[in-house]
Amino acid sequence: MEPHHDGSSLYVSNPSPELGEWVQVRLRVPQSLGTPRAVRVRSNPDREPRFAEAELVHSAAGWDWWQADIVIENPVHGYRWVVRTSDGSDLWINARGVFDTETLDSEDFKLTTHPAPPGWAAGTVLYQIFPDRFARSAAADRREAPDWAMPAEWGDDVALEQPARSQQFFGGDLDGITLHLDHLEKLGVSALYLTPVFAGRSNHRYDASNFDAVDPLLGGDEALVRLVEAAHARGLRVIGDLTSNHSGDAHDWFVAAHRHPEAIESDFYYWLDEGQETYASWLGVPSLPKFNWRSPELRRRFIDGENSVVAKWLKAPFALDGWRIDVANMTGRFSDEDLNADVRRTIRRTMIDVNPDTLLVAESTNDASTDFQGDAWHGAMTYANFTRPLWGWLSEPDTPAGGGLGMNMSTMPTYTGRQFYRAHRQFSAGFPWQTRLATMNALDTHDTPRFATHARPGTIPVALGMSMTLPGIPVVFAGDEFGLTGIDGEHSRTPMPWDRADEAGERIDLYATLIGLRRAHSALNGGGMRWLHVDDDVLVYVREDAFETILVVAARADVDVVLSPDAVADVPSASRLFGSASISADDDGIRLTAAGPVFAVWQLEGTTL
Amino acid sequence: MEPHHDGSSLYVSNPSPELGEWVQVRLRVPQSLGTPRAVRVRSNPDREPRFAEAELVHSAAGWDWWQADIVIENPVHGYRWVVRTSDGSDLWINARGVFDTETLDSEDFKLTTHPAPPGWAAGTVLYQIFPDRFARSAAADRREAPDWAMPAEWGDDVALEQPARSQQFFGGDLDGITLHLDHLEKLGVSALYLTPVFAGRSNHRYDASNFDAVDPLLGGDEALVRLVEAAHARGLRVIGDLTSNHSGDAHDWFVAAHRHPEAIESDFYYWLDEGQETYASWLGVPSLPKFNWRSPELRRRFIDGENSVVAKWLKAPFALDGWRIDVANMTGRFSDEDLNADVRRTIRRTMIDVNPDTLLVAESTNDASTDFQGDAWHGAMTYANFTRPLWGWLSEPDTPAGGGLGMNMSTMPTYTGRQFYRAHRQFSAGFPWQTRLATMNALDTHDTPRFATHARPGTIPVALGMSMTLPGIPVVFAGDEFGLTGIDGEHSRTPMPWDRADEAGERIDLYATLIGLRRAHSALNGGGMRWLHVDDDVLVYVREDAFETILVVAARADVDVVLSPDAVADVPSASRLFGSASISADDDGIRLTAAGPVFAVWQLEGTTL
Repeated sequence: MEPHHDGSSLYVSNPSPELGEWVQVRLRVPQSLGTPRAVRVRSNPDREPRFAEAELVHSAAGWDWWQADIVIENPVHGYRWVVRTSDGSDLWINARGVFDTETLDSEDFKLTTHPAPPGWAAGTVLYQIFPDRFARSAAADRREAPDWAMPAEWGDDVALEQPARSQQFFGGDLDGITLHLDHLEKLGVSALYLTPVFAGRSNHRYDASNFDAVDPLLGGDEALVRLVEAAHARGLRVIGDLTSNHSGDAHDWFVAAHRHPEAIESDFYYWLDEGQETYASWLGVPSLPKFNWRSPELRRRFIDGENSVVAKWLKAPFALDGWRIDVANMTGRFSDEDLNADVRRTIRRTMIDVNPDTLLVAESTNDASTDFQGDAWHGAMTYANFTRPLWGWLSEPDTPAGGGLGMNMSTMPTYTGRQFYRAHRQFSAGFPWQTRLATMNALDTHDTPRFATHARPGTIPVALGMSMTLPGIPVVFAGDEFGLTGIDGEHSRTPMPWDRADEAGERIDLYATLIGLRRAHSALNGGGMRWLHVDDDVLVYVREDAFETILVVAARADVDVVLSPDAVADVPSASRLFGSASISADDDGIRLTAAGPVFAVWQLEGTTL
Repeated sequence: MEPHHDGSSLYVSNPSPELGEWVQVRLRVPQSLGTPRAVRVRSNPDREPRFAEAELVHSAAGWDWWQADIVIENPVHGYRWVVRTSDGSDLWINARGVFDTETLDSEDFKLTTHPAPPGWAAGTVLYQIFPDRFARSAAADRREAPDWAMPAEWGDDVALEQPARSQQFFGGDLDGITLHLDHLEKLGVSALYLTPVFAGRSNHRYDASNFDAVDPLLGGDEALVRLVEAAHARGLRVIGDLTSNHSGDAHDWFVAAHRHPEAIESDFYYWLDEGQETYASWLGVPSLPKFNWRSPELRRRFIDGENSVVAKWLKAPFALDGWRIDVANMTGRFSDEDLNADVRRTIRRTMIDVNPDTLLVAESTNDASTDFQGDAWHGAMTYANFTRPLWGWLSEPDTPAGGGLGMNMSTMPTYTGRQFYRAHRQFSAGFPWQTRLATMNALDTHDTPRFATHARPGTIPVALGMSMTLPGIPVVFAGDEFGLTGIDGEHSRTPMPWDRADEAGERIDLYATLIGLRRAHSALNGGGMRWLHVDDDVLVYVREDAFETILVVAARADVDVVLSPDAVADVPSASRLFGSASISADDDGIRLTAAGPVFAVWQLEGTTL
């Protein structure tokens, strides 16, 4: 039982204030802490601390609520609380937790005046599709494989070694996706995220040959229009994928400039010799030459203004609902140059001009927060705050780390629940609340092993349930709902086993149930996030807003936990939404018991407000 | 006993590499940890992790030394160590400590390719002088007090209430300082830091009326030349103080622009109305109008190029050895504008062009590290990493927080030694090693209460000793060596009681002894920093280089501590340099005992290398 604040509507009067606007912020303090001598909010305008006195405005259900007014003076306004307790010691409360010494600016709560993410962002459940492996339409059979491709049958094993690793070609296409929208609607996801659809010379298409047309192998522009229209008709949004860090070496721009110093496109890349023979590339891979964002012409063509690539695909007839940006962390960064902020803000400005109701998420697979302060990227596709800690807690000991999880270790580290909690909070604390709500909670992606491959027995509902109930956008990688496995990022790109839908029924139903749970409850989208219990094997938390309290137990072993009687209000109203566990309350506390592993969720009618 | 690395010469082959240069880095691992399965260095070029394998290169005295080669790819190259231990768990080692989960980029060790601080920075002991209160020359008696001043006799009490607070005028001058250089030489400090010497309309002169001439009340330009020449002749450097955030409202530039929209200087400030009647100012104080650094003309006059203010005073005949920048944290920051990086880099570039062997330290009294990454400011004048934690540990409970310590609490928090350690490490971790070595360790300044006012009995040697032995530049505020007290930043500006030098003899000797200790030992200037023991009352650490190990005990109570036998090597060689404590070693460990409070220092001939 600790003082608590977060960026949700229980605690902040306006999550998207203007510069100069006054905002009311609230802190809940357990009455068991005694009466504080003072409660203050420390803001940090222009990096000079300023303290505002809070007043006790409300008391209920074992909690005192303190409120202060703060004025927003910079585009990112950091603030923290300090409670001087009855014994004279101080508690500092920031986005990372409660501390007995002063805390870092970077872990302050943050309000930003940058344009807010679209209203639908926090309520999104994303479904990730790797087009070559999702489904083939009838038209796919009539297409010839390109010169670079090594054609495969749908049932073939995924090749793990180069060159087949990048060139094995299953021939899935966009109309194949359109044909399976029933499946997505049944699952209940709200948006598709497609990895690249522009032609490249690989099955993953992260080596674009141009950004001007959908790959004819996927059905061309018309197939994208058909897919987006069909998806929109069902209320599903569609998000594309852009490589702002690099193109392919077969890209029109690169071909024009390579060995041609006189070409207009010469300044699009970093050349390492005068003849423009050698060049900087993504991790030294020659097929992925790195963009040089000093070039105004590159900006004009790619990201800046309504004639840019960024704009084109958001407009009719394509009407994509947003972009996922590949390798955003490296974009614009090279040697002593760092144009990242400039590039990302330009991308977002262009998107706002075309359609502000679009989402912009960006890959940054490690400590992401410094680039994600609300000025451009709405959320991070990162593994640091959720995916890796979750694997640490719920995968088998000595799980191979595989490619893509970014650890470069032979095996994943094994975490206790306490370590999960510490890592999760550490890597979440730097995000403004709205950024956190739009940051991905993925068990796995097309770049990682699949979680099911190494899950401890019985923990898939736990992991999936946490992705649906912790703040952030759940991301389901196509095939997880069929129980697919994969030992690394390549192997995970398994063709969808549509013929095994029946035998996968139980897993598909689990996904549909937990996705449905997420989408049905406002508190799971934007509600506050309060931890109630953390030990090696059991995590208990609530998501709450003014209308409901969602109580969650996630455990990898049996549960027998007693919470403070004031942890949540109105336990008798508890209605079980998922899982097999029991809850009871008396004067000594709130007792939770279950056989583990278990994921259990209750809705409580009251809140502690 | 933990794995350890820092930026010192025991661990890093080149602290100031060029871009593209390979650097060898070493990690010491206690053999008691068992044989690691792997030791790796994680770098983060362009924000994409890259791991380098380390090799075991040396074993001695209970320690294994692992070495890896890393290539420096960005101007600030962050890196951390990861040790996969024999039981398969991971230890992450960064500038903040040793952790069992992944760590934040901001707390990585850091090497920078920015120009290094001057070679003398890390060996500096700074003596801070507030000119109005240090000493009067005979000429001072012949000067008339200006219209704004409220003349005071040298023995008068310092006025605490406005307007006397800013206007009480004691008439100290620069020749007064020159007359007392014997005292500074006896103390053994190596540099003077003078708060502003330009005319203002206050005793503190942070409200400059111009930056072109030394205040005639201080003796004018000639007096500064005399002081610097006399100081240099004794091997003492002299550092000035510039207000880059604001001028005074009597400044020529402000007077020209105020209510005169047509003036050239109009764009030097932030006007809040068209008639230029109202304006932004430091914390809303109208006498301190805030500079608008978008102005190219302001840059040209003040900070950019050899005709600027920044340059002028570093050149002959004034030949200052560097600048301390006032309110650096707020400089260039206003509403949605943040020009801070640009301003600070311009200041430093100008200094390098005039004389690269100059020091640039900057005020940033709280979490300072984000602005202090080696691109301009060499070190921070901050209270977050040393001053406040030290007060928390060694001042009396319920010590009034006073102005200037930046807490805005009625009393300072009371810290245990563990809390000191946590706060100290937290606020130090973000600095590159060389920045940390040039960051101030002050017990107090002209902006704070004096530490002696509230010290726990017997702890002044402990506090002073820590300022001299922890990484950083010790700063002695003039008068501390006389035992002066002061309850807030104004009250601490007590005129120096030169007539009481005899009765202050013991305190002056203590200062001279500890300053001499600091200056005599290379390990105390740039040596590595390794913590050996932390509890509520006792801190034990070593500073070490290839030539010596300096073992330090700082305690606010009695000491009876047993360290691991491998904590330091060659205890029999221990030579006591300061304090009353005893050290002994047998197979069970190294035992330290003393009656507290105590500050004790030994030199050991060997190192654990």
